[in-house]
Amino acid sequence: MSDSAHASGHSVANGERRIDFQTEPARYRHWKLAVDGDVATLTLDVDEKGGLFEGYELKLNSYDLGVDIELADALERLRFEHPQARVMVLRSGKARVFSAGANIRMLAGATHPHKVNFCKFTNETRNGIEDFSHSSGVATICAINGTAAGGGYELALAADHIVLVDDGSAAVSLPEVPLLAVLPGTGGLTRVSDKRKVRRDHADVFCTTEEGIKGKRAAEWRLVDEVVQGSKFDETILLRARELAAKSKRGGAGEGIRLPPLKRTVSDDAVEYGSLSVAFDRARRLATLTLRGPPGAPPASVDAMVSSGAAFWPLQLARELDDAILHIRFNELDTAAIVFKSSGDPAAVLAYDQFLDANEDHWLAREVRGLWKRVLKRIDVTSRSLVALIEPGSCFAGTLAEIAFASDRSYMLIGTRQGDNEPPASIALADVNFGRYPMPNGLTRLGCRFLANPSDLDAATAEREKMIDAEAAQNLGLITFALDDIDWDEVRVFLEERASFSPDALTGMEANLRFAGPETMESKIFARLTAWQNWIFQRPNAIGEEGALKRYGTGQKPVFDTRRV
Amino acid sequence: MSDSAHASGHSVANGERRIDFQTEPARYRHWKLAVDGDVATLTLDVDEKGGLFEGYELKLNSYDLGVDIELADALERLRFEHPQARVMVLRSGKARVFSAGANIRMLAGATHPHKVNFCKFTNETRNGIEDFSHSSGVATICAINGTAAGGGYELALAADHIVLVDDGSAAVSLPEVPLLAVLPGTGGLTRVSDKRKVRRDHADVFCTTEEGIKGKRAAEWRLVDEVVQGSKFDETILLRARELAAKSKRGGAGEGIRLPPLKRTVSDDAVEYGSLSVAFDRARRLATLTLRGPPGAPPASVDAMVSSGAAFWPLQLARELDDAILHIRFNELDTAAIVFKSSGDPAAVLAYDQFLDANEDHWLAREVRGLWKRVLKRIDVTSRSLVALIEPGSCFAGTLAEIAFASDRSYMLIGTRQGDNEPPASIALADVNFGRYPMPNGLTRLGCRFLANPSDLDAATAEREKMIDAEAAQNLGLITFALDDIDWDEVRVFLEERASFSPDALTGMEANLRFAGPETMESKIFARLTAWQNWIFQRPNAIGEEGALKRYGTGQKPVFDTRRV
Repeated sequence: MSDSAHASGHSVANGERRIDFQTEPARYRHWKLAVDGDVATLTLDVDEKGGLFEGYELKLNSYDLGVDIELADALERLRFEHPQARVMVLRSGKARVFSAGANIRMLAGATHPHKVNFCKFTNETRNGIEDFSHSSGVATICAINGTAAGGGYELALAADHIVLVDDGSAAVSLPEVPLLAVLPGTGGLTRVSDKRKVRRDHADVFCTTEEGIKGKRAAEWRLVDEVVQGSKFDETILLRARELAAKSKRGGAGEGIRLPPLKRTVSDDAVEYGSLSVAFDRARRLATLTLRGPPGAPPASVDAMVSSGAAFWPLQLARELDDAILHIRFNELDTAAIVFKSSGDPAAVLAYDQFLDANEDHWLAREVRGLWKRVLKRIDVTSRSLVALIEPGSCFAGTLAEIAFASDRSYMLIGTRQGDNEPPASIALADVNFGRYPMPNGLTRLGCRFLANPSDLDAATAEREKMIDAEAAQNLGLITFALDDIDWDEVRVFLEERASFSPDALTGMEANLRFAGPETMESKIFARLTAWQNWIFQRPNAIGEEGALKRYGTGQKPVFDTRRV
Repeated sequence: MSDSAHASGHSVANGERRIDFQTEPARYRHWKLAVDGDVATLTLDVDEKGGLFEGYELKLNSYDLGVDIELADALERLRFEHPQARVMVLRSGKARVFSAGANIRMLAGATHPHKVNFCKFTNETRNGIEDFSHSSGVATICAINGTAAGGGYELALAADHIVLVDDGSAAVSLPEVPLLAVLPGTGGLTRVSDKRKVRRDHADVFCTTEEGIKGKRAAEWRLVDEVVQGSKFDETILLRARELAAKSKRGGAGEGIRLPPLKRTVSDDAVEYGSLSVAFDRARRLATLTLRGPPGAPPASVDAMVSSGAAFWPLQLARELDDAILHIRFNELDTAAIVFKSSGDPAAVLAYDQFLDANEDHWLAREVRGLWKRVLKRIDVTSRSLVALIEPGSCFAGTLAEIAFASDRSYMLIGTRQGDNEPPASIALADVNFGRYPMPNGLTRLGCRFLANPSDLDAATAEREKMIDAEAAQNLGLITFALDDIDWDEVRVFLEERASFSPDALTGMEANLRFAGPETMESKIFARLTAWQNWIFQRPNAIGEEGALKRYGTGQKPVFDTRRV
């Protein structure tokens, strides 16, 4: 990548060379986060001049990735820094407009990979809003004070309760198909049909009506939950917030913990974090992530856990891992495979899992588990080949074993290496592997792995808390291949071969093979909707010189290849 | 479309201008259909020179659409002409090769729409094989005597029982990703993970290993059901056939009925069938299908039904409708919307549904219902905007009402038209609308429509066998809009607008909005897998001048854009 042009197709603003996912409320340019008692309010007031890239202005509360990075950060702040918050209100800081959605100039100028990655990240953030309600008990109310178009309405769709002002002009809309010849990029179609269960012919009308639907019909068609007069708007929002806060099961009274900026050392070929090392071998198109196990025993008490704050090992590692995965997704597009390694004592990892299990009702323990759940899901939907190398001295146990199960393949070394002092590799299972970390399809990774024979799952369950060596792990079906030192070169051959295949074909193949079994709204969004969207984003009718995305705003009508496919 | 080049990108062989889906066993060039007692054997022995298009040879039992049209026809023959068949054996007529899959030269030269339509049709045919087992009780055994690669193995995956010869070289494989940079096009990934429940890392190895998997490992990994020595191969197949025939619940002893060629009159702007008219308005990009209700009362007895044979009204109409839909899909790519109309007496349609219900255990009644189920599913996954116009004199009742529910929108005229003698439009529901015709997602169309409020489904259930006028239909949620004669012009405006939108965006939108609720293997194949495939089929890594599909067989390696998306 050159200094001036990022892989996104744009130049990153302010001379930055990479997209950084770290921010904090004091640096926000687009969102305001306020917590008043148990009501958190997130106000969208986009700074037009604050685009992440050069070349466009974020008018009418339209957004780009930078706006969404702040939203994702704000959600983490609410989880960890504001445990007293019991309801969240999403609103606009601008008059008569909620949000115009994803910025069209940004989309028109972005590369295909950036568009796809952008949509994936915004989807994850919206899923996070729903998970905040489901797992932490913090429901979201969306207060639509004007136009909520495209991604603006899709943000509202992530809320539990949508209130639309009835002023004769405020409307919700998904104008992507009629206006831009693309699909709503952030789960809109799926949430309309599967979450809000809008009747399919109404959905058809809605999604092909550029100006959207307003007033009473918006509520009748289930697009919003209530429509209120402008004079009653603020009081209705407040009333609903009080009601939902009263119903919240969140028990996190008291102070939260602070999430300081991650300590990172970024060099050309590596990113060093406290508990994680990332090394890039660009010639082989590999990113190797080495996760380090806990530095010692878990805290002696929940108070000690709270005191350790963001340095609490599982929290620190999860935040670092999340940052690393996003960095690779957006800034290291040429990476073919992510290789996961680990180093440390598997027993120490199990001890942390036991500590979190023992304190599962404590708000911080719950939020740490929730963060791991989301980071693991982020790995599940990352379009890179995922490989776990389980070698002597590694600690793929409990929560960390999930990373091996999230991988497309795992290789485990039998015994030790000549001249190496590390103990033979063991993996270990814990309760946490059997229910705490559902995949996007709702199954645990082991449950999905053993879909054919539930008895294999029973056999694995019986091995909890034991150290399992390579051959036993292979017999239990927990790894793909157990290899001795002499055959370990097969791993190199495999990684070379993988890098020689078509990146697109691998993306499609992995997206299909990773998620056997049931589908959820979430898996439909990532698998089905995303795939259609990827296709359409690639078609000349959208992105060609005469396509709708290119011609939007020029006054020229798009010219379409009229063949239906 | 010019005389020489069909919309597929190739010239249709023998100077034909359109792809015709009508054939019969005497004309087969690639399959042999033999029925011996209760065992039907379908033998694939592809005529290399018998390609549907000019420009390639069908070597090694590779196939193109023409081969699959014969397979689909053979299945219908077994359903209707051979009710005594209770098991089906799929085998190869060539030594040491089962099938090399879809012909690569054909794929490399085909247009994007043809590739997508080809895969959709082959998927429907394989789903039909599974449905033959599930609904008619005729299980399929696949006898793999050699190489079963790509689409060859995908055909095997549709069987209930796969037997692979163990001769040191016979193997099953899905080499699309490593060899061609595309995905297996006919449900392979989904059936590997969801039907055969192959463990995901094994599936990963399998789908990236060009030469495939043979012998014992193929069975251990669940890719085949049994592996047998060559000397035992034929007797094993026969034994399994006897076992499955003995278990079959098919009760269709005696003679079948003959399926004569459909009577069609094809002109430039129309296709006229006995019970169906198709009119093309190419300027407006519309195909209007007018379904005609029954000419009289249903037969007096099942014997009379059997005697009427292929002229039995619901059978005739279903065959004609199927042919028309396929014709539009493949030969009329510019059609933006399919407009469904009907003419006839709704009470007469209900009488036929009652007749079929009363005789639901008769083999022919079951097969007729089954054909309608499959034709309706074919409509569900047709990528054209679907519109039902319910006008005076129409007969959208019972089975025909499903077509309105399969449509993206329906418009119903209130009252009569000035100067028109036709009675006001009524629609009518029957038992058949509440369970007989599941969509690909497993729900009935009304169940899917009323996902939000099951009480709406109850209200509809209570109206069975009644004539429902436009306003009542709108109140019940059975139609999208009831309009009077003065407002009916809205339909014209809607159709014009629809034709102005991007065909791709509409395809993606409709694929997402039509299938709310659960997913099945079938819906995953059409929605998730197909979408990924469409995307990959469009990417330069596959179809570019340096892409794998173009370079296959040239000795030159493909050059890939290495960015992962």
